[in-house]
Amino acid sequence: MSVFPFEHPFLSGLTGDREIAALFSVEADMAAMLAFEAGLAAAEGAEGIIPAGAAAEIESRIKTFQPDLEALNQATARDGVVVPELLRQLRAAVGEPHATSVHFGATSQDVIDTGLALRLASAFNIFGARLDELVARLDALAVRDGAIEVMAHTRMQAAIPVPASRKIESWRAPLLRHRAAMAGVREGVCVLHFGGAAGTRDKLGAAGAAVALRLAVGLDLTVADTVRHAERDGIAGLAGWLSLVTGTLGKMGQDIALAAQSEVGEIRLASGGGSSAMPHKVNPVGAELLVALARFNATLLSGMHQALVHENERSGAAWTLEWLLLPQMVVGCGTALRTALSLVETISFVERSD
Amino acid sequence: MSVFPFEHPFLSGLTGDREIAALFSVEADMAAMLAFEAGLAAAEGAEGIIPAGAAAEIESRIKTFQPDLEALNQATARDGVVVPELLRQLRAAVGEPHATSVHFGATSQDVIDTGLALRLASAFNIFGARLDELVARLDALAVRDGAIEVMAHTRMQAAIPVPASRKIESWRAPLLRHRAAMAGVREGVCVLHFGGAAGTRDKLGAAGAAVALRLAVGLDLTVADTVRHAERDGIAGLAGWLSLVTGTLGKMGQDIALAAQSEVGEIRLASGGGSSAMPHKVNPVGAELLVALARFNATLLSGMHQALVHENERSGAAWTLEWLLLPQMVVGCGTALRTALSLVETISFVERSD
Amino acid sequence: MSVFPFEHPFLSGLTGDREIAALFSVEADMAAMLAFEAGLAAAEGAEGIIPAGAAAEIESRIKTFQPDLEALNQATARDGVVVPELLRQLRAAVGEPHATSVHFGATSQDVIDTGLALRLASAFNIFGARLDELVARLDALAVRDGAIEVMAHTRMQAAIPVPASRKIESWRAPLLRHRAAMAGVREGVCVLHFGGAAGTRDKLGAAGAAVALRLAVGLDLTVADTVRHAERDGIAGLAGWLSLVTGTLGKMGQDIALAAQSEVGEIRLASGGGSSAMPHKVNPVGAELLVALARFNATLLSGMHQALVHENERSGAAWTLEWLLLPQMVVGCGTALRTALSLVETISFVERSD
Amino acid sequence: MSVFPFEHPFLSGLTGDREIAALFSVEADMAAMLAFEAGLAAAEGAEGIIPAGAAAEIESRIKTFQPDLEALNQATARDGVVVPELLRQLRAAVGEPHATSVHFGATSQDVIDTGLALRLASAFNIFGARLDELVARLDALAVRDGAIEVMAHTRMQAAIPVPASRKIESWRAPLLRHRAAMAGVREGVCVLHFGGAAGTRDKLGAAGAAVALRLAVGLDLTVADTVRHAERDGIAGLAGWLSLVTGTLGKMGQDIALAAQSEVGEIRLASGGGSSAMPHKVNPVGAELLVALARFNATLLSGMHQALVHENERSGAAWTLEWLLLPQMVVGCGTALRTALSLVETISFVERSD
Repeated sequence: MSVFPFEHPFLSGLTGDREIAALFSVEADMAAMLAFEAGLAAAEGAEGIIPAGAAAEIESRIKTFQPDLEALNQATARDGVVVPELLRQLRAAVGEPHATSVHFGATSQDVIDTGLALRLASAFNIFGARLDELVARLDALAVRDGAIEVMAHTRMQAAIPVPASRKIESWRAPLLRHRAAMAGVREGVCVLHFGGAAGTRDKLGAAGAAVALRLAVGLDLTVADTVRHAERDGIAGLAGWLSLVTGTLGKMGQDIALAAQSEVGEIRLASGGGSSAMPHKVNPVGAELLVALARFNATLLSGMHQALVHENERSGAAWTLEWLLLPQMVVGCGTALRTALSLVETISFVERSD
Repeated sequence: MSVFPFEHPFLSGLTGDREIAALFSVEADMAAMLAFEAGLAAAEGAEGIIPAGAAAEIESRIKTFQPDLEALNQATARDGVVVPELLRQLRAAVGEPHATSVHFGATSQDVIDTGLALRLASAFNIFGARLDELVARLDALAVRDGAIEVMAHTRMQAAIPVPASRKIESWRAPLLRHRAAMAGVREGVCVLHFGGAAGTRDKLGAAGAAVALRLAVGLDLTVADTVRHAERDGIAGLAGWLSLVTGTLGKMGQDIALAAQSEVGEIRLASGGGSSAMPHKVNPVGAELLVALARFNATLLSGMHQALVHENERSGAAWTLEWLLLPQMVVGCGTALRTALSLVETISFVERSD
Repeated sequence: MSVFPFEHPFLSGLTGDREIAALFSVEADMAAMLAFEAGLAAAEGAEGIIPAGAAAEIESRIKTFQPDLEALNQATARDGVVVPELLRQLRAAVGEPHATSVHFGATSQDVIDTGLALRLASAFNIFGARLDELVARLDALAVRDGAIEVMAHTRMQAAIPVPASRKIESWRAPLLRHRAAMAGVREGVCVLHFGGAAGTRDKLGAAGAAVALRLAVGLDLTVADTVRHAERDGIAGLAGWLSLVTGTLGKMGQDIALAAQSEVGEIRLASGGGSSAMPHKVNPVGAELLVALARFNATLLSGMHQALVHENERSGAAWTLEWLLLPQMVVGCGTALRTALSLVETISFVERSD
Repeated sequence: MSVFPFEHPFLSGLTGDREIAALFSVEADMAAMLAFEAGLAAAEGAEGIIPAGAAAEIESRIKTFQPDLEALNQATARDGVVVPELLRQLRAAVGEPHATSVHFGATSQDVIDTGLALRLASAFNIFGARLDELVARLDALAVRDGAIEVMAHTRMQAAIPVPASRKIESWRAPLLRHRAAMAGVREGVCVLHFGGAAGTRDKLGAAGAAVALRLAVGLDLTVADTVRHAERDGIAGLAGWLSLVTGTLGKMGQDIALAAQSEVGEIRLASGGGSSAMPHKVNPVGAELLVALARFNATLLSGMHQALVHENERSGAAWTLEWLLLPQMVVGCGTALRTALSLVETISFVERSD
């Protein structure tokens, strides 16, 4: 048992998702924040807010910029956020006379929230592809095994026989709804955050909207009517969607684990986990993991909604709480989808012999 | 402190919402379940599944049917669900020869989940109207006070002055998004549940779809492609939406309580709560209640997502968990909207004197 | 589905607990608050803080005092707490010249939190008796069925046979630990709250401690070194204990539901719930309810711990959140114990036939 | 924003705790599991369950054993638990004829749960020392600033002045209670888990208890009457205690952030976080972090209590859920204590000037 099973040397094979976790690596985080700063310089240069030469210099320096991570670590402990020290380093790299043009009119939250939006855009792409593939595999399973008769169970008791396709459909139909809802969730999240100290772009005057539009277009994000520093419904909505997906997969996992019980045997697992005490057992490890991840995301979801109470123009408390919760939920969803894709390949429904 | 402040003799003035709570009264519950049974009889009569005379008799008897609540209470303790005893009573009221045509081909969950859908439809109407009115009142507040300069606060420290309209907009914009999302949430919830024992309408043969369509039309609900007994994403999505609304209002409440602090005084409350020890105080009772309700719904939301792990074709455990949680979340949202409507009428922004 | 299944006309047979719920009735609430006021007057009279005649008059009037509930309801909506209006009514009943001696030096939270402590003392008595009885019934079950061989299951797969006593012991042992821990939990909760406006008993001068001691003794509560208005660990600890009890019972319920599955049949239920579609079924209603209540209390527990962030000397937001959550958790625990007591009487382990 | 701020290259300075996190490193995890296997061999050798030569060989080999982490990672993905592959590697290292004596009569959960208990024992030592030191620092703060008069606030409004010592005491008193309760929590957690496949030590016959006692003594753990594989109240109780500690510190953080508001100024922060947009600000970063960590642990606590519903003799789902939650809660508590220790050193109460 280690702090973070999702990134652990030997647990991550079970509980991790390298593809999704990479989006939350320090490299990806830094690249996204620097993309914001480069895009901002370009947009402000084009709108004449900073000198064109400054914009070119900033964009150029960012390409080769290497942050001093240890200094960032120490400063983040003091500042509560990495951005002030990152800017200090970046301004030093840009040098005079353009150092003051770096991050002009922006605030820490602009950088961090936009950086997150950029990486979540990639996560949505992965989730979309995996959902499509999972539905396809369930379709294939239904084609192959759907006519097999299995026992329906209500309130943990045998009810009446139904075709396996009925069970498969109860897993598949919600996934289709989640897939369809994804675009709306993405729209609420993949938004440019650019508002300056208090969300009013006070240092940019009349050019604020134009800079924001250029920046958003450059980063392939939406620009919102007002800056959403303290409006966290988009990200809380994402948390809800992630938990709907893992919840649906948890139901599938629970169904499979029940049907694969030794005494029931309506689903056979081509492979499963071994036991240190009983080598003959085939444990429904993937199915159980789906249940665990469903309950995990259902648990964390509550904290993301607590963070909706984001006081004033920026809450250090509520914002930090999001940092502690959301990335795990994203990886949890990725792991669940990855696990479900494997699991569906290994199960087969079994004709009842009675 | 009493079990259910929402329905309590003296706490409900604070925490209750009579209009919403009425939708969960035994009268409303019974009326909705009987509407299902009457509609089912009508649809099955029209499709020739039961005799036309049976349908007419059932519909007629339901109009004057009075359940024996004490018998329902005892039987529910045994059966885990009210429907078997309700049907026993209803069949007795219908009498021979049509008693067996009552509830033909349906199951307990059909009645209860459809009954809930019918009442939630009314809840959405109330929520929609209140959201519209709340946005209108915030608009009016912005017109009246929006130009007043207030101090923006980030990380609990004074930052820079902004117009009050900026603060109002951070409350209003998410409400508009919740309002826009409501139709989709409603679509996931206001669905006919009619599947029989295992969701396959096994007793209706080829006529199942036609009966379902007639029944859905009669009840003004959507008919889903497959029966959603064990697919709980619609209702979990509703829980998420309810918590987004209360969370947004909780942020507004927190902002108002902070701005109304004695030392800050940027918002004045025309009225507030009295104190038993310090009669001079004006307590921001409504604002604090909004924070409490936000945290309440954020808490309960977790359990609604735990209930997504709804094993097999019907889970007594997960379904009962929903009963214990969802109605409270609906009332919590109603109370928050009601409270916010009053609160917005009593606040005014105060010109800074410095 | 209705707002509060615990107090519902036909659901409460299943999910309610009349004995525990009675502790949270308006009558019990009012009686406890008035016991505080009467005890306070007596203690202050004895210490010469208020005239002896005032104390006698207050105690006498309280005996026949009948509050105007509708007025309390309206005032609570305004004040956020029932106490100011209750005192207004009580002072009117006491009349001049002693009206001002009512509630002297106390604050709303003193009345409400002490009133809760008094009622929780009764709840602990009930819980203790039920835990003792439940352990006795499990002992009897072990005596009768303990030698029967059942299959142990790990990771949802048959492992090796064990005696039924092993399974029973895994239900019983944690209950014994909860029973042993109860005294400490009670000690953290059954505490006098008497601190006045800001917890310093500012109006009582040097006599504060003596009054508090007399009052505590009179109410059979502990007097704490400092007033705990804003220290909520006692009540959060109670919430944790309630959830440990329901969680242990939920594990028992889950085990029983799994062992009673049609395909497993290692536990037989003498009685269970009926089905509206399949009259032959015996549903493990009590076992499923235990799972639901475990998940319910595990859900609400989170909110009680959120309420630990109780800002300043009294937080309207955090305090109200407790009111919305704790009573339900107490009733949920009561219902689970009541249900477990019945369930254990109806199960029997079945000799395996293989 | 990255997956796990607690272990992140630049966020961990803020949110991490190297001392506690080290207890959950792969090295510490592996060392603890190997300590179990070495201790088991020694105990079984001494009791004649395995040959004395086998015990000596196993203990010797374990001293220099280096696991193949990549193989462990792959196998854990399949088995759901690291132990089978770890044993395969360890048996290969021990070689014939003693390989079969490795792990004799034990199961995966014995190794993992005992390994966790060993590391939690270290965590309690750290927590105890930090709590003592924090109380000492609060005492010193009370000595220095306790007589300064500050305004008490109830329901977010100024109430009456109180000495700062009153506020400090409301932070300190619960910490003393948590410190006193720690021994009981530790007792519930620092327990030997040794039960074999189904908790009955089936392969050890009459020697089971003697082996368990020797093993427990060797590891400085308690031996329980029955094996607690499926009894999770000890660990859920720990989770509750961790959240009580962070909740108490969150209340302190919230109080400090409120008192340090620009408009209030009753607490001065000697240092705080910088802002990228407003370099003049002193942000109460530590205070806000305490609030975030309180809400974080309050959130995760719910999932640890969901895991009490641990079906049968071992639940892969509930057990994995614990792995995903508990270590984070332990680190969260460590970080909160570390942060509070620093914060208390930097605050001073300010004499009111009015």
